[in-house]
Amino acid sequence: MNTDSTETSVTPEGAPHPGAERRLVELGLELPASPKPLGTYVEAVQTGNLLFLSGMLPIQGGRPAMVGHVGAELDVERGRTAARLAALNALAVVRTHLGSLDRVTRVVRVAVSIATSGNARDHPKVADGASDLLQDIFGSEKNSCRSVYGVASLPLGAPLVLDILFEVRA
Amino acid sequence: MNTDSTETSVTPEGAPHPGAERRLVELGLELPASPKPLGTYVEAVQTGNLLFLSGMLPIQGGRPAMVGHVGAELDVERGRTAARLAALNALAVVRTHLGSLDRVTRVVRVAVSIATSGNARDHPKVADGASDLLQDIFGSEKNSCRSVYGVASLPLGAPLVLDILFEVRA
Amino acid sequence: MNTDSTETSVTPEGAPHPGAERRLVELGLELPASPKPLGTYVEAVQTGNLLFLSGMLPIQGGRPAMVGHVGAELDVERGRTAARLAALNALAVVRTHLGSLDRVTRVVRVAVSIATSGNARDHPKVADGASDLLQDIFGSEKNSCRSVYGVASLPLGAPLVLDILFEVRA
Repeated sequence: MNTDSTETSVTPEGAPHPGAERRLVELGLELPASPKPLGTYVEAVQTGNLLFLSGMLPIQGGRPAMVGHVGAELDVERGRTAARLAALNALAVVRTHLGSLDRVTRVVRVAVSIATSGNARDHPKVADGASDLLQDIFGSEKNSCRSVYGVASLPLGAPLVLDILFEVRA
Repeated sequence: MNTDSTETSVTPEGAPHPGAERRLVELGLELPASPKPLGTYVEAVQTGNLLFLSGMLPIQGGRPAMVGHVGAELDVERGRTAARLAALNALAVVRTHLGSLDRVTRVVRVAVSIATSGNARDHPKVADGASDLLQDIFGSEKNSCRSVYGVASLPLGAPLVLDILFEVRA
Repeated sequence: MNTDSTETSVTPEGAPHPGAERRLVELGLELPASPKPLGTYVEAVQTGNLLFLSGMLPIQGGRPAMVGHVGAELDVERGRTAARLAALNALAVVRTHLGSLDRVTRVVRVAVSIATSGNARDHPKVADGASDLLQDIFGSEKNSCRSVYGVASLPLGAPLVLDILFEVRA
């Protein structure tokens, strides 16, 4: 569990996983600039093999790319886009902190808190906007456990915040 | 803390704790089938001695056993039943992942997110539906720390989601 | 990361950090009595080098010092006071559990769940009420990562709950 399996892991289809940094290139993805804290905290803290990240918002160029509640101002598809954007910000923080995404040995836990109206039910579809991207990059054998919540409001009026815990090579 | 104390631990009354699997039998409890993920994630991830679980819903037979907000459609007693049901699903996941509940050395943390109306205050009573069951099974010396929140909405319209972190023998 | 750096760490201004217990004295702060659980749980659980705390409320003398939602009954400044008070309760729990705050080697993660109305946006200012105090006491080099959420309701009608994870000398 704590050993690096990047080069030997195998995808469900049987092909060896090429590593997260290589996958980013294959997918044509560029990571954004690492987001800046909105208060008295840092974006990442490592303790032992665990890398905790601050809550990631769907920020782009220093501002929320979308504002509002899913199920009200924003539909599920916009929510998925927000989740994917927050995940890209998380990856930017990981690379800034570790130097390379290839030091991630497992995505341990993903929590997605979505600003919703009281009768929303499609949280898992929104959250998959982040989880599908993480699977694309790290491979399904590193898939996390996950929790999703519908909350009342979020900083800057953002529609969601993403909390990710990684296991990394120490 | 990291050593297994199942056979030597002592209950407040002075009797040695019989072990979690044995307690399940004594209580006449059968665990349900382990729940299935609702998206791109897995139900449990172990890193070192820590076993993280996905958010557990009060699912029974693949569907929510109850739907609604506590304090609106559901009263506190129904909320307690939902919390207990979610905890049973968590135990099913633990047994599937570890083979036996007796490999749990501590319930580290329980978080209970309850769909509520804005003036709800009885969250701890609802959450005890899960915590009381865990204490019955693992013994009070393994009791967790805990946080409870009133949220706006949850997947499938469920009244609560339960997040549990376990310490286990590696 | 896991080694104690209290006596050798250096503040941004270049002066060595005097240690958390000494800082408390310098700041003229006295910790309150450690809060009591509201149900079937304990206030702190240590596993390895990680110390998990239960959700801390702005309790004073056994009762919430303020009640209501930030942005409705309470303004941002009262929210900041609530966050600071919850942080003091957390420190009381840490000292009770560890004997001394000087055994804390890092504040790993702070999560602040704030009871809000749906259009609140100033969560980070409220959360800094806790984070600023922790920085004053432990020094900025031990600053945590952080997540903040606006939730619907909280136990006892409290305006916020604070979850802190510490790294400690085992």
